[in-house]
Amino acid sequence: MPLLKSWVDSANTATTDFPLNNLPCGVFSIGDADARCGIAIGDMVLDITGLEEEGLLTLADHAVFDVPFWNELMELGPDAWADFRAQVTEFLRAGSPKQALAEDYLVAQAEVTLHLPFLVSEYTDFYSGKEHAVNVGTMFRGAENALPPNWLHLPIGYNGRASSVVVSGTDVRRPLGQLKPPGADVPYFGPSKRFDLELEMGAVVGRASSDMVSVADADEMIFGYVLLNDWSARDIQAWEYQPLGPFQAKATATTISPWIVMAAALQDFRTATPPREVPLLPYLREPGPLSYDISLEVGLAPEGKPETVISRTNYAQMYYSAAQQLCHHTTSGCPMNVGDLLGSGTISGPTKDSRGSLLELSWGGKEPITLDSGEARSFLEDGDTLTLRGHAQGDGYRIGFGACTGRVMPALELPDWAK
Amino acid sequence: MPLLKSWVDSANTATTDFPLNNLPCGVFSIGDADARCGIAIGDMVLDITGLEEEGLLTLADHAVFDVPFWNELMELGPDAWADFRAQVTEFLRAGSPKQALAEDYLVAQAEVTLHLPFLVSEYTDFYSGKEHAVNVGTMFRGAENALPPNWLHLPIGYNGRASSVVVSGTDVRRPLGQLKPPGADVPYFGPSKRFDLELEMGAVVGRASSDMVSVADADEMIFGYVLLNDWSARDIQAWEYQPLGPFQAKATATTISPWIVMAAALQDFRTATPPREVPLLPYLREPGPLSYDISLEVGLAPEGKPETVISRTNYAQMYYSAAQQLCHHTTSGCPMNVGDLLGSGTISGPTKDSRGSLLELSWGGKEPITLDSGEARSFLEDGDTLTLRGHAQGDGYRIGFGACTGRVMPALELPDWAK
Repeated sequence: MPLLKSWVDSANTATTDFPLNNLPCGVFSIGDADARCGIAIGDMVLDITGLEEEGLLTLADHAVFDVPFWNELMELGPDAWADFRAQVTEFLRAGSPKQALAEDYLVAQAEVTLHLPFLVSEYTDFYSGKEHAVNVGTMFRGAENALPPNWLHLPIGYNGRASSVVVSGTDVRRPLGQLKPPGADVPYFGPSKRFDLELEMGAVVGRASSDMVSVADADEMIFGYVLLNDWSARDIQAWEYQPLGPFQAKATATTISPWIVMAAALQDFRTATPPREVPLLPYLREPGPLSYDISLEVGLAPEGKPETVISRTNYAQMYYSAAQQLCHHTTSGCPMNVGDLLGSGTISGPTKDSRGSLLELSWGGKEPITLDSGEARSFLEDGDTLTLRGHAQGDGYRIGFGACTGRVMPALELPDWAK
Repeated sequence: MPLLKSWVDSANTATTDFPLNNLPCGVFSIGDADARCGIAIGDMVLDITGLEEEGLLTLADHAVFDVPFWNELMELGPDAWADFRAQVTEFLRAGSPKQALAEDYLVAQAEVTLHLPFLVSEYTDFYSGKEHAVNVGTMFRGAENALPPNWLHLPIGYNGRASSVVVSGTDVRRPLGQLKPPGADVPYFGPSKRFDLELEMGAVVGRASSDMVSVADADEMIFGYVLLNDWSARDIQAWEYQPLGPFQAKATATTISPWIVMAAALQDFRTATPPREVPLLPYLREPGPLSYDISLEVGLAPEGKPETVISRTNYAQMYYSAAQQLCHHTTSGCPMNVGDLLGSGTISGPTKDSRGSLLELSWGGKEPITLDSGEARSFLEDGDTLTLRGHAQGDGYRIGFGACTGRVMPALELPDWAK
């Protein structure tokens, strides 16, 4: 599909994340006013709640956007999602007779505060990046045992903590936790010294299920995608994770981009997952290309210093698509709900500069990376700002997610009862 | 505290779970009517929603019980919880001038359907039973490595799936999943053959937190307790759980008792956790006895056959209290919310007949147990009904939870796309 022209000029450039082809879903507020649903278009936001209030946009026989989250639209199902895109496109397309009407509902992105775009029901994090699994496995278990025996047969996942999901721009405090340095006899309690990022994509489940669903049906349940940074305390994790998996190491924060890019906006960028190294069981086989070609990068800016891009990779690296992950998630009869968030797992490419975590980039801290400012990094320092960016590249335009940022704040002082 | 006498005669017996001292919180419906909040008293239910509707019970300047769950009362905080108990006690105590009023709001438990008593925000499952951890560790890793090195230092936990929590009486379908029998080269997809129960207690978090809380404060955040059966597919778990922990093995269902016993009703039954085998870090130390003396048992009834009690144990076995678990849960900055559910971990005692799972009772299937009907069991069979019961024993009365039951249904037929 070519670029769809809008009368919003800033939406017609090759570098905006938000052309008319995109229409990503966010929640915004201005000053002290209540938060509202909006769509990004160029450098503006279209006030969807306002349009609905005035009767200019109608999706159902009840209000859908009178709440500051997109779950209500998701509840209506795929036909309504398509109807919504058609109605909004009609407002914003070049030559639209509705331009004058819509102009009253446009506000500059520079003037708004963005909020979490949906209510996160539950959060699951997968481990579907093969390079990441091999890298981490090699560091922890040696090259011979790098990939767990189940890895090529199923998308390994674990349940994360939905309450920890925050929107881009939220400061993230370095966590406290139990730490047991190599060689120590007993653990101590203090701030994590190996606080890290994980570059991921998140799939937003838009339809509920109660029984097992096929990969094809799972794909249709996905409303859209976000960028996702799964902050991880490697030292807390190393001590706590056996035998039941990561817990407090992953519970401090998970930052997502402020905009949900609807799956409909990404259809031109479908691509196949990598070739299977062993055959998958029938239930996990894909009926067609279900992954996406989405370029990703991570920037790290020390406090008061310019940013260095520390990683460039692509979502198409993932061995399992979100549809495969969601299908596997339902095999046990596990009910899925609107607003469930599925993290892809860390997205690392085959080269050193495409690794999606500092754990991998610095090889467990043994090979610190050097930033453009000359500083070295093994793990995150207080004051560091992380920024994830991503886009699918069209012909003369791109479909982007907006920046997914977070700054590391110093750990809390230990309270007296913890000393 | 002695038995508090009620004018509801069935509440004054030594064997009812629900004397006036208890007042547990449930949600009930009659026929097709909407579900309402109620309190169990003897063999009756007091219609709390009805009392509030008529202005006979007032907790706040807004309706608290106009929704079929108890989260709204929890939101009001501990002073309101105490006020609630005082007001309800005044309705139900022997000699109450309000007896005639309250009689209109009593219905027989035999006539009601019970529902999930609260909205489960997120569900965390711990692993705080030392005998259970040693038993499972011995089977999986040998006696020398039975207890993971972190076990005596922190309450190991993992995030479970809130959407899978169901109320007592809900049928539970045997899950499908990836299974890899010992010696097989590759996994296959089919019904679990090692489907199991886990006897646990659940703590219901009644107050939210955003920063780390002390053990003492965590204890005051707990609204009440339920019985909890964490259904587990051992064969799915064995194949999937490395390196990120249990996932689909624990996502089929988690059954809780229909009644939340408020922490206030259990204060007379406080007891200390077992002696520490190594000193705990200061943040996890308890300011006093924070566990509870609650007798527990599990009954197993094959279809059409009488029940055999297969395990008798006590909550006081748990090495970590719910308050310690909740404190540890907050160390990373993980936000906790009203309605969070914390499973204790499987409660096994030191003797064979006090083990809280079939995995332990049959020692991994090697020593099947024999039921009173003469049948043997290593794991659950289709049609088996599991019933958890529990109570704290007072002087001539007890504080009970009602039965926590579930029947195992046959697995779904494999859909064509999964064959």
